[in-house]
Amino acid sequence: MQNLLNELRTIVGNAHVLSEGDLSAWEQDWRQRAHGKALAVVRPGSTAEVAAVVQTCARHRAAYPDQAVSIVPQGGNTSLVVGATPDDSGRQIVLSLQRMNRVRAVDNANLTLTAEAGCVLQTVQEHALNAGYLFPLSLAAEGSCTLGGNLGSNAGGTQVLRFGNTRELCLGLEVVTPQGEVWNGLSGLRKDNTGYDLRHLFIGSEGTLGIITAATMKLYPLPAAQLTAWAVVPSMQAAVTLLGLAHHHLGAGLTGFEVMSQFALSLVDKHFKQLRVPLWQDGPLCVLLENSDHESEAHARQQFEGLLEAALADGCVTDAVVAENLSQAKALWQVRESISLAQSQEGLNIKHDISLPISNIPAFVQTTDAALVQVIPGVRLVNFGHLGDGNLHYNVQAPEGVDAAAFLREHEPEVNRLVFDAVTQFGGSISAEHGIGSLKLHQLEHYKSPVALAMMRSIKQALDPQNLMNPGRVIKF
Amino acid sequence: MQNLLNELRTIVGNAHVLSEGDLSAWEQDWRQRAHGKALAVVRPGSTAEVAAVVQTCARHRAAYPDQAVSIVPQGGNTSLVVGATPDDSGRQIVLSLQRMNRVRAVDNANLTLTAEAGCVLQTVQEHALNAGYLFPLSLAAEGSCTLGGNLGSNAGGTQVLRFGNTRELCLGLEVVTPQGEVWNGLSGLRKDNTGYDLRHLFIGSEGTLGIITAATMKLYPLPAAQLTAWAVVPSMQAAVTLLGLAHHHLGAGLTGFEVMSQFALSLVDKHFKQLRVPLWQDGPLCVLLENSDHESEAHARQQFEGLLEAALADGCVTDAVVAENLSQAKALWQVRESISLAQSQEGLNIKHDISLPISNIPAFVQTTDAALVQVIPGVRLVNFGHLGDGNLHYNVQAPEGVDAAAFLREHEPEVNRLVFDAVTQFGGSISAEHGIGSLKLHQLEHYKSPVALAMMRSIKQALDPQNLMNPGRVIKF
Repeated sequence: MQNLLNELRTIVGNAHVLSEGDLSAWEQDWRQRAHGKALAVVRPGSTAEVAAVVQTCARHRAAYPDQAVSIVPQGGNTSLVVGATPDDSGRQIVLSLQRMNRVRAVDNANLTLTAEAGCVLQTVQEHALNAGYLFPLSLAAEGSCTLGGNLGSNAGGTQVLRFGNTRELCLGLEVVTPQGEVWNGLSGLRKDNTGYDLRHLFIGSEGTLGIITAATMKLYPLPAAQLTAWAVVPSMQAAVTLLGLAHHHLGAGLTGFEVMSQFALSLVDKHFKQLRVPLWQDGPLCVLLENSDHESEAHARQQFEGLLEAALADGCVTDAVVAENLSQAKALWQVRESISLAQSQEGLNIKHDISLPISNIPAFVQTTDAALVQVIPGVRLVNFGHLGDGNLHYNVQAPEGVDAAAFLREHEPEVNRLVFDAVTQFGGSISAEHGIGSLKLHQLEHYKSPVALAMMRSIKQALDPQNLMNPGRVIKF
Repeated sequence: MQNLLNELRTIVGNAHVLSEGDLSAWEQDWRQRAHGKALAVVRPGSTAEVAAVVQTCARHRAAYPDQAVSIVPQGGNTSLVVGATPDDSGRQIVLSLQRMNRVRAVDNANLTLTAEAGCVLQTVQEHALNAGYLFPLSLAAEGSCTLGGNLGSNAGGTQVLRFGNTRELCLGLEVVTPQGEVWNGLSGLRKDNTGYDLRHLFIGSEGTLGIITAATMKLYPLPAAQLTAWAVVPSMQAAVTLLGLAHHHLGAGLTGFEVMSQFALSLVDKHFKQLRVPLWQDGPLCVLLENSDHESEAHARQQFEGLLEAALADGCVTDAVVAENLSQAKALWQVRESISLAQSQEGLNIKHDISLPISNIPAFVQTTDAALVQVIPGVRLVNFGHLGDGNLHYNVQAPEGVDAAAFLREHEPEVNRLVFDAVTQFGGSISAEHGIGSLKLHQLEHYKSPVALAMMRSIKQALDPQNLMNPGRVIKF
């Protein structure tokens, strides 16, 4: 192994092969569920260095199959499914992309930005903004997650309703293959029907098929105004009806549609009193709507008023407020984004990141709520999420007064099975935006169609026959 | 072979295995460039029948490798790249999806429509419209092309600027694999990060990896109004500037941005005098803009007026008209859509379906026009296309008075090489929306990155090791 490390030092420089001291920033996932042991953390500074590192590891693996060295690509290390930290074998190289953090180009006429994989998402957003454009990908970890990680995991976030997942924002990739070859697919083309879409195969493959080193992403004109509204709805079915009305009244202006259950909001009220959660006591659910308008704030407001008038007349909304200004709009988003922290304050819970056909969400929630309460009397459901995308963070909290850790130990497998069985029954997905990583690997084997799993395995075998890239993630192989 | 045909008759019924008489409707592509000879045309009526047909053919191929039976999936047979007709070996089964033409479901709350592969595109559009929604895929062949063919070739069309290619409209697929297994991926989910994106792998694979039998597609709210404007621009650079202004002023309302050279419009004027081409003599290029507004026609008009005022002030537009009503709007589109026919009337030409980063289009056109005129004095360029997507139909017409057939014979390879070399130099694609088929197979081998080609071959080998599905298309194997 020492020879390998020496070779890697020759490629990236001594300072960028870390094999001693405290490596926990790279070895431990940020939710601290897994603590691995890396052979080394290698930090290449260019695509050519990434390619050379991969070639060297591939050669080593071929020469010493018993040592089974492998590579774990890592960006900002914010995976929610333990997808980017090493196992405890001491045989995995963490290949950190953090030094590859340049924005290579902004092309105004083409509405594209090309950046390296290690660019922090917020940096990409800021570069776009400085050029007068919007890069719409936005999510809680944006201050530390990287573009490469966003692509590898096909991250979602708060603007998917209008702009799609990371996948839909990407026009081209640069990839280092498991053989250490460089594929330059940084086309920036909106149409390119020249063979199989390799881009979409790499996006969402969580580093198991190769290493994304750079990408060309779409930009959009900046909206002239972004307004939010907050509405009380009498039921999940009413929320779905409101979503249909919002599509109709706001058109492509509808950029956010978040649903939050009363219990989820009560936790924010309890733990963050200063946030002043509006209207949460007035109904079982609230909805946060965002309207991004290319004309003006006045126009955005007028559009919202037309929508809310129709919704109140319909009965799918019982009360609502429209933010008076940008600062109020931000405050409403802050309430929504504080739910995650508020539930942590209340104690650990069993988290789910699921999606469903939107039409099935009311029945799913009703059925699953009832089933859980029957199995675990007093259980509390923290239900919130991106209803506009059919994505719920349907989390299960211990009954009042019950120790959270004990609750998780006792009930997690049973709760997961019940929830995922219901998701499957209603035509949904057990991972909407967080991916599979190692955390959901076994569940994927259980819930995914065997035909699809077989195709996935064939593809992995075809592109990475050595199983060099991020083994034990996404697909058993 | 007779046993095989008998087995297939047992599966789909005697009436649906055609092996005698005039089969030219299936054996000949619609531009009549290729005339093949099928072993039989097989027309299954269900996914189960498709699976049984594929299993039977796969077994036959394994048992009699020297006979090398294979399958050519076919929809409406409107491929522009000879992608869906059999070769002349007499060993290919044309598997026509035309009997699988049901719309299975429209889900209003989920904004999705699920239809079988053999559904004619126009039928899909009409079902959406009857339910009160827009299915935005629209292209010249929509009266006969099928949804399965659109997906297999990732068709583009006139609304890509706002809604993307067929790929971007698809949320899920049902596929019969080359082994005759059925993958049901008809999820209708907007977020689903459970492993490799098989959907995008099948879309655009032109039937070489399996057979798409059904799909779940996105629907959109119907716009309240669709207006068009027609502008004279002094240069291609001015057209690009106008595109930027249009994105800014119209936001997501901008659903069409078509550029047409003066010569292209002169052909419409010459061959279809009754269409009354506006303003074509006033500048080197005209642009057709479409604004789809979710509010009202008055609002759409006001938005257009703001845009055109800014564009006239900037100088990127020298004159413009806005359609007075829907009928005028349609008339403007008809001029645009008549360019194809007008050039046929003028005589066959050398067609290209290319895309480029939009920022490179002015330089590409200037350089390539000049190079062509130098090589072939008097050559005429029919340049038009979806500038908003970076997609040009850059066609090369014989000099005035020169016999078109002789011109093609003499110059086609040279012109293709010159144009595709320039496309490559400017970072573009040799096939924007028509695909590869068999027509561009050799060119793809020449122009595509060897790393990408190697990955494509590995994937083909992994999923279809027998090379049963549409051999000789997309990728040499």
